[in-house]
Amino acid sequence: MNAHIITIGDEILIGQTLNTNAADIGNKLVDIQIFVRKASIVADNEKEILDEFRDCWGKNDLIIITGGLGPTHDDVTRQCVVKFFNSELVEDPEVLDDVKKIFEKRGRKIDKINEGQALVPKIATSIRNMLGTAPGMYIEKDEKIFVVLPGVPAEMNYMMETFVIPYLRKKMGAIKSYSLRSNLLTTGIPESFLFKRLGNLDELLGGAKLAFLPNQFGVKMRITAEAETEELAKNKLLEVEQKIRGRAGRYIYSRNEESLEEVVGRLLTERGLTISVAESCTGGNLSNLLTNVPGASKYFERGIISYGNVSKVEILNVNEDALNEHGVVSLKVAQQMAEGVRAISGTDIGLSITGIMGPTGATTDKPVGLVYIGFCDEKVCTAKKFVFGENRIFNKQRTTQAALEMIRRYILGIE
Amino acid sequence: MNAHIITIGDEILIGQTLNTNAADIGNKLVDIQIFVRKASIVADNEKEILDEFRDCWGKNDLIIITGGLGPTHDDVTRQCVVKFFNSELVEDPEVLDDVKKIFEKRGRKIDKINEGQALVPKIATSIRNMLGTAPGMYIEKDEKIFVVLPGVPAEMNYMMETFVIPYLRKKMGAIKSYSLRSNLLTTGIPESFLFKRLGNLDELLGGAKLAFLPNQFGVKMRITAEAETEELAKNKLLEVEQKIRGRAGRYIYSRNEESLEEVVGRLLTERGLTISVAESCTGGNLSNLLTNVPGASKYFERGIISYGNVSKVEILNVNEDALNEHGVVSLKVAQQMAEGVRAISGTDIGLSITGIMGPTGATTDKPVGLVYIGFCDEKVCTAKKFVFGENRIFNKQRTTQAALEMIRRYILGIE
Repeated sequence: MNAHIITIGDEILIGQTLNTNAADIGNKLVDIQIFVRKASIVADNEKEILDEFRDCWGKNDLIIITGGLGPTHDDVTRQCVVKFFNSELVEDPEVLDDVKKIFEKRGRKIDKINEGQALVPKIATSIRNMLGTAPGMYIEKDEKIFVVLPGVPAEMNYMMETFVIPYLRKKMGAIKSYSLRSNLLTTGIPESFLFKRLGNLDELLGGAKLAFLPNQFGVKMRITAEAETEELAKNKLLEVEQKIRGRAGRYIYSRNEESLEEVVGRLLTERGLTISVAESCTGGNLSNLLTNVPGASKYFERGIISYGNVSKVEILNVNEDALNEHGVVSLKVAQQMAEGVRAISGTDIGLSITGIMGPTGATTDKPVGLVYIGFCDEKVCTAKKFVFGENRIFNKQRTTQAALEMIRRYILGIE
Repeated sequence: MNAHIITIGDEILIGQTLNTNAADIGNKLVDIQIFVRKASIVADNEKEILDEFRDCWGKNDLIIITGGLGPTHDDVTRQCVVKFFNSELVEDPEVLDDVKKIFEKRGRKIDKINEGQALVPKIATSIRNMLGTAPGMYIEKDEKIFVVLPGVPAEMNYMMETFVIPYLRKKMGAIKSYSLRSNLLTTGIPESFLFKRLGNLDELLGGAKLAFLPNQFGVKMRITAEAETEELAKNKLLEVEQKIRGRAGRYIYSRNEESLEEVVGRLLTERGLTISVAESCTGGNLSNLLTNVPGASKYFERGIISYGNVSKVEILNVNEDALNEHGVVSLKVAQQMAEGVRAISGTDIGLSITGIMGPTGATTDKPVGLVYIGFCDEKVCTAKKFVFGENRIFNKQRTTQAALEMIRRYILGIE
């Protein structure tokens, strides 16, 4: 079964509202093995909507429409359904009852505009709305299914979960092919290098599919495996994952959606390790991410944001000679900061960050994007150099990600 | 001029990634009076992409495509452009130079795969990418414009702003009706209270339009005014803005897109004031935002993340009796933290945050969401109580926003 999702609404087209509805519907359909072929967004305009209905009708088994079902003048979806199917509006007593109950509950008197919500196209079957006044509807014709849902995300999601998905499952009968997905999240390696490391993809994948999704934090690899049974698809997926791990395992910090700070928080907790951080250029971003994880107080007691030089000397005991000789953005100062914060905190790990995030601050030999991350434990005190880009916010994010990755690799003993 | 936006990528169709690109592009086009007629999302599939190109070509003056330009096997947009226009790939020496420079800067050796990014369809003109390796491109043919941009949001947005929008403005020439928009950003007041404060909307707006867009940071009011000349539309807009400011001015921290931290950074710089912060529950989020603003070192020298009690006592000189008597989440401790961080830093302002972000940490008399923000200057030392919600991350964000707003109101003398 292949599907097309139509979102109706000017606010989506002009970028005022993010199209979370199409994403939510797409996600739910894929979960029950329905192939989402395409999606589209059209304005609250009768001609455009009817054109889109006509265009989609010939190409898909399932069309899901969301938006434009409200009671006001700018909602035209329902009348488009009437025209498209040459139907007429009739009152659905069950829906009228639902609408009346909602008004009663809110202690308001129902009016003509809202009573009109109970008018549905004769050809359609209503889908009841427990969260609002606009009913959804579905139509079966020529072996095709046409579903119309309200645009309010909570109402749409409620109808998808309680009615549409179970209904589609039943329609599809026994599933003949299972398609499963998983994500491997990497950081610290560019997309093209990762690609090369994996070698011959056809051989590696053996029929499964692989997509690379890069952003400023790293590259997500999405694997899709299809088979006749769920068991077989799962095995296929795990087999491919194993092969990828064999070739690029050290860069993979998570499977599916666990963030790097969550992974690091979990590892620190599991090993009973504590950490303190001294941030200069990232200005608290690392501490902020570490404390986004519930239970962070188990491993994080303090962080020092030594943004200027005075606090580096006063709080972290950075040597003024080191500052003068090597400069504040240097291996030496990074080491001393990490050592300093670990000493005043009494933690297992001391981590530090010093760098130039831009747009200003570059010197002849130190460009914007230059960063040193210092790392000390009981035994060693080291620092590593990085060069990121031009964008201040991205530099802060990428530096923080690199610092988190250093912690992860340290704990797992990855060189 | 009417436009169609095509987003390419399986990850969008299956709901794994939100389609922020289409929203951003739609928003920018509307700003320059281009009518976004429709948008669509298609899979990383040559046949589907070519079908969509063909379908859109006849119906639009402008087609903007984003996604599928990367160097790996699953990126097929470029080859679709070649096929659609019956063109061929040729090397663009300027793009090759850009790609080489990016690799040089990152200290990595360039390889064949990445050199391939410099191959562009002969019929197209490259749009240079300063943030990544994939160039954008545009084609003018049969009085139509065809623009292709990378899918990485930062790269796409950069090209839209620096090249595509100025280029389209020039192409469009004289405009006949002007529709201008502005945003007034508020914080610290719920949508329904703001709505009530504004009184009779028809009277206030006099034909202009107003939308309320709430999120966890506050409520954005978007005003749209249309007129025959730019001057008239601008005057109408300013007139409405003035009226709104008269009724809810104290809650408005910014016009259009300046963030609250940018406003605060600008005000601190203008007044020559310095600030130090002591964060407990927000774990560095406030310092992080303050240092997102370029030039933050003018007013920010240090921040202390005293996540546990030990660092509150050791670094900030919080009184152990106060901790025992009032608890760490209390007015008293907030005041002492603000006083302490101001004293060790020698800044004009000392600000502190202590609270319970959840999901754990609540007691019988102190719920999740309880926060105290302390604020000291030379003369007074005070603290204010807030109660936010249940969600840890939202609580961190809302607390930080409230702290920034306290600084703004202090500087501007708003009670």
